[in-house]
Amino acid sequence: MLGNFTYHNPTKLYFGKDALDGLNEELKKYGKNVLLVYGGGSIKKNGIYDKVVKILTDNGKKIYEDAGVMPNPTSDKLKEGVERARKAKADLILAVGGGSVCDYAKAVSVSVNCKEDPWEKYYIRFEEPTCKIVPVGCVLTMVGTGSEMNGGSVITNHAQKLKIGHVFGEEVFPKFSILNPEYTYTLPKYQMIAGIYDIMCHILEQYFSGEDDNTSDYIMEGLLHSLIASANVAVKNPLDYEARSNIMWTATWALNTLVAKGKTTDWMVHMIGQAVGAYTDATHGMTLSAVSMPYYRHIAPYGLKKFVRYAVNVWGVNPAGKSDEVIAEEGLKAMESWMNGIGLVMNLKDLGVTPEMVEGIADATLTMDGGYKVLTHEEIVDIVNKSL
Amino acid sequence: MLGNFTYHNPTKLYFGKDALDGLNEELKKYGKNVLLVYGGGSIKKNGIYDKVVKILTDNGKKIYEDAGVMPNPTSDKLKEGVERARKAKADLILAVGGGSVCDYAKAVSVSVNCKEDPWEKYYIRFEEPTCKIVPVGCVLTMVGTGSEMNGGSVITNHAQKLKIGHVFGEEVFPKFSILNPEYTYTLPKYQMIAGIYDIMCHILEQYFSGEDDNTSDYIMEGLLHSLIASANVAVKNPLDYEARSNIMWTATWALNTLVAKGKTTDWMVHMIGQAVGAYTDATHGMTLSAVSMPYYRHIAPYGLKKFVRYAVNVWGVNPAGKSDEVIAEEGLKAMESWMNGIGLVMNLKDLGVTPEMVEGIADATLTMDGGYKVLTHEEIVDIVNKSL
Repeated sequence: MLGNFTYHNPTKLYFGKDALDGLNEELKKYGKNVLLVYGGGSIKKNGIYDKVVKILTDNGKKIYEDAGVMPNPTSDKLKEGVERARKAKADLILAVGGGSVCDYAKAVSVSVNCKEDPWEKYYIRFEEPTCKIVPVGCVLTMVGTGSEMNGGSVITNHAQKLKIGHVFGEEVFPKFSILNPEYTYTLPKYQMIAGIYDIMCHILEQYFSGEDDNTSDYIMEGLLHSLIASANVAVKNPLDYEARSNIMWTATWALNTLVAKGKTTDWMVHMIGQAVGAYTDATHGMTLSAVSMPYYRHIAPYGLKKFVRYAVNVWGVNPAGKSDEVIAEEGLKAMESWMNGIGLVMNLKDLGVTPEMVEGIADATLTMDGGYKVLTHEEIVDIVNKSL
Repeated sequence: MLGNFTYHNPTKLYFGKDALDGLNEELKKYGKNVLLVYGGGSIKKNGIYDKVVKILTDNGKKIYEDAGVMPNPTSDKLKEGVERARKAKADLILAVGGGSVCDYAKAVSVSVNCKEDPWEKYYIRFEEPTCKIVPVGCVLTMVGTGSEMNGGSVITNHAQKLKIGHVFGEEVFPKFSILNPEYTYTLPKYQMIAGIYDIMCHILEQYFSGEDDNTSDYIMEGLLHSLIASANVAVKNPLDYEARSNIMWTATWALNTLVAKGKTTDWMVHMIGQAVGAYTDATHGMTLSAVSMPYYRHIAPYGLKKFVRYAVNVWGVNPAGKSDEVIAEEGLKAMESWMNGIGLVMNLKDLGVTPEMVEGIADATLTMDGGYKVLTHEEIVDIVNKSL
């Protein structure tokens, strides 16, 4: 744990089959007006909407609705949500849905009392909130982004073909999150698998950086083992509670700031994946899986020691008598084979990317400098081409 | 992650060589009167006292002192501290020291505004605080207990020969803790090694319980790998910053409630060790190491599957062609050999325990029921005898 850092994560989590009971306790802390934010309406089909509305009503809350948050929430929708929150004089924004809904709720929360254009302020100029933040709570129905216990908020601007994430400070973290693994049962298998890879990728983005002997890397290896074991069960039986609950818990700890402490981080798979998302509106986790293998094979030579450690500690590669290059590649092959096996999308064509889009995707990719190699434009083009 | 639980840990941590700078930020949140709590005065020799007093003075605080907190803080000292805190009208209790000082500060914090006898209320009747709690902050100078980010508070009553821990809720957790690995450098090697085993034992007390496939167990395996690797370095070179910082961070996460989530826990090594501590005043971590091997060998048959997993995943035992019993014992042998190698006390005689004390220690041992076997009085006597 080299370097100085602070850790502070005040989000309260309620976990388990009875987690929603916690909402009763939390609602006491806030005023009457609740802006209920959700997506395409699947929560109305699976009964979660009714349960939440009953608890809100039982607790004397006035409900204002903001439905239709899309999988990649847009800057246009954000403006609409801000207007709704203002009209509602919202005391609490309650997000019921997956990471997108939660991300969106945070974006609304920092914009309600702010006169500037939220897209420009937070996603182009990366400013911090300067106005009163409306508290956010979250009832999670989809697993992967970790948004339930962090300050992350990704918004897409279709006109500008940009999908950008702002990582807000702890004052924007959800005050509480309700995590009931059963709420994730009705999710289509494609979405579940995409979420599993989103989690894995969050861990790997923080793992593949730095050369020190860092406790965070050991914790990540533990999380990876848990994720792989539970994913193997959940893919065969999506209704296995134990597997789904481990996946849900791993997702939270993969991206609630803990495992990045004391180390640098990469995030280039997300940067490329988000650029793909802005072009195709494809499911986030699948944009990550489609570009991962070409990316990791490209950077492995620059962080060989860590790729060797990954192969041995995570994938059980026997290193005896092999060169570092061979060990690293055996680890990546094992990962690739596992990804294929659970049904992840392994190329960009399947997500609708055409060769004509490659330059644009590379242009839209933000370059980060925490990984083993700072990518040039040409390298990004090469990785996207190899991912086609 | 079976079962329902909540997770909420609001303690803010400042970590690293410049961690003490965070005290300036924190002090702004509290009133003028600070009760400065510390131990035998080693902080005056190593300069930490002067640094803390300067920051308190620079921030306009009035300092009231409560020195002389002993390694096993007593119920008599607690009464004295409560009186001092009352006279100071303390707005903040600042603990500068190891887990004992931090434990003690918490015990004072829940007793200042409480008329009842703290020992009787919290450690005999295990009641929750019913009075206003004075906030606690912590500058950590010794590693092991995790007290810097939890509600644990162990107090010893010599007259009653009892050493009892109360685990308070999050309202008693330190509001902030300052973790500078360099502050642990001046600690004698014996204390450092005892602290390392305290950490390991905290992890194992939570690991050796339950039969489910729990993410917490995977995280604990990661923490154990980090601890073992860093301990091996620190024992040879106690001034290795990377190793000491990993040990410090692992200690915090081993006992800040995270790794117990979704599972049952054991704690019988601590229960026996604490009874030994009440009889001998021996260093806490060494009371744990001295009784561990007889205890684990006693319970292994009742939790064999987990002991096999431990041997393979933590100690790298090759399971091929071996019975579960053999694999488990090979794991315990590897652990025992490692413990011997880093210099832990491996029997109770070296801590001053005599055969005449055995019955009394067994009587003073609280029995918990979360492990693989609920111990009878005879079994505790047997384990203590085998630990002599």
